[in-house]
Amino acid sequence: MAVYTQISDGELEAFLGEYDLGELVSFSGIAEGVENSNFLVRTTADTFILTLYEKRVNRDDLPFFIELMRHLAKKGLNVPSPVPGRDGATLRELNGRPAAIVTFVDGVWRRRIRPSCCRELGAGMAEMHVAGLDYDRVRENNLSVAGWRPLFDSCDLPKREIYHAMHNQLNMELHHLEAHWPRDLPVGTIHADLFPDNVFFLGDTLSGFIDFYFACTDILAYDLAICLNAWCFETDGSFNVTKARNLVMGYESVRPLSAAERAALPILARGSAIRFLLTRLYDWLNHPEGALVKPKDPMEYHQKLRFHQGVSGPAAYGLT
Amino acid sequence: MAVYTQISDGELEAFLGEYDLGELVSFSGIAEGVENSNFLVRTTADTFILTLYEKRVNRDDLPFFIELMRHLAKKGLNVPSPVPGRDGATLRELNGRPAAIVTFVDGVWRRRIRPSCCRELGAGMAEMHVAGLDYDRVRENNLSVAGWRPLFDSCDLPKREIYHAMHNQLNMELHHLEAHWPRDLPVGTIHADLFPDNVFFLGDTLSGFIDFYFACTDILAYDLAICLNAWCFETDGSFNVTKARNLVMGYESVRPLSAAERAALPILARGSAIRFLLTRLYDWLNHPEGALVKPKDPMEYHQKLRFHQGVSGPAAYGLT
Repeated sequence: MAVYTQISDGELEAFLGEYDLGELVSFSGIAEGVENSNFLVRTTADTFILTLYEKRVNRDDLPFFIELMRHLAKKGLNVPSPVPGRDGATLRELNGRPAAIVTFVDGVWRRRIRPSCCRELGAGMAEMHVAGLDYDRVRENNLSVAGWRPLFDSCDLPKREIYHAMHNQLNMELHHLEAHWPRDLPVGTIHADLFPDNVFFLGDTLSGFIDFYFACTDILAYDLAICLNAWCFETDGSFNVTKARNLVMGYESVRPLSAAERAALPILARGSAIRFLLTRLYDWLNHPEGALVKPKDPMEYHQKLRFHQGVSGPAAYGLT
Repeated sequence: MAVYTQISDGELEAFLGEYDLGELVSFSGIAEGVENSNFLVRTTADTFILTLYEKRVNRDDLPFFIELMRHLAKKGLNVPSPVPGRDGATLRELNGRPAAIVTFVDGVWRRRIRPSCCRELGAGMAEMHVAGLDYDRVRENNLSVAGWRPLFDSCDLPKREIYHAMHNQLNMELHHLEAHWPRDLPVGTIHADLFPDNVFFLGDTLSGFIDFYFACTDILAYDLAICLNAWCFETDGSFNVTKARNLVMGYESVRPLSAAERAALPILARGSAIRFLLTRLYDWLNHPEGALVKPKDPMEYHQKLRFHQGVSGPAAYGLT
């Protein structure tokens, strides 16, 4: 939970003066999100989210994210849609940070995942993939296979004795992934961070997606593999095959997977597990004392990685 | 900024099931407030605030606060109004904590205080005092003169060498306040925490008051003295007499002060300064490493206290 940058009423009113959004009625910082500062802004016209992009987001990537949301919203997907100011610009500056106002997406994220949620998620993700196919901007995924080794090295595990065993395991896993990472699967624009808190529901129906700040151009099925990890394990670490099958079936109801994509799911799931394992490990080892945001436990993803290392094929995910 | 207790969608939906407030549309934790956990809840009917009362709030005091808000709202003041469930109860339990839903008060708090804000504040506070005169519940102010000595003792300043000089100064000040604290001034229901972040404005007009969780039965003019400290000093520590005069004139436009109340303002301001100095000092000395909420600087109120110690009478506050 975090608001890193405070905004004064005067600063906000001056900022809103560049938009046609009516008068300010209220605003409050939102205690969710770990990368950027988010504010709920109500005006006489509507409710919006104002985001201030903090230092972990690369400024050069912002046009990719903003235009992607606009692209998807135009195609009818329920995602935050960037609101232009009177001058047409969606990205401007507030308090020394890049800032944008986006529309508010109704919905609640599901803490308790039911299999039917996974089916909704799969179908919604596939719709997003299809809608993103003609998005013309490209952003390389700096957290895919080429990015893992430098991240692993920067964790500097050999320096810490208790991590020696993990260092050797991950080193071997990285060699395996680097050697076997699929090269010919369909590529497109993926969300790349579809954790439950970025997927909204109204009742049992998926109502929208938020937080496109890891979106990139990468293997489409990799997004599915991320969700296998983020949605299909129980809190005790066990893998729920019913949820996995629902996820894939939901996806295929919109965009059927090729045989090659299905066959690649185990290695994509291993890659996705190591991606979140490494970023969490890095944050775990490097978070400052008394940081506002408690780092997430990397061991959760170590356990998930081991599960995927042990599967013999896509049948382990309920695929027939 | 803080949300101490997380709520799941399922818990919230079950909780909302006890109300007639329509379907849940969205909810998010609010990164403001340091005592309780607050959530912005939107339903198909309206927008509300859900508060979970954390351990610093005494459960036995909650009916006083809740009923006070209801009392003031009924009299037309724009304050959060407790929303009853279908069974008529406003105070219930969620996630092991007392919880209440209140109406949302539109407005924005002013980071930059103009003298005209102080006039609005004075008039609004006086209206609140008048409206509270026939509120029939009583809550003693445990942070008034009788409470300061125990709080001072619990800070245990003699244990820390750098605080020895402050210990002696505050000890003398407490003796002075205990000997001269006024006993016969008009008493009523006061807010007791009217800092700028608890007072909302829409444009230049005061739109409402929030956060009644320090409200109590005490000297009415003490509320005014709290605002002299919280609203009339500049960030460089200088006292702005124009703001003070606006505050008192605004107050008197609704409820004129007696000669005794005016004469007592300097000592009430000293008392209010030591009250916030002591609670901040206590929090400063006792906050846990890595606490979510950064404690406020007690020295700000030490400086304010010294200002009031030096005034010769109410004329120092711009009163003629």
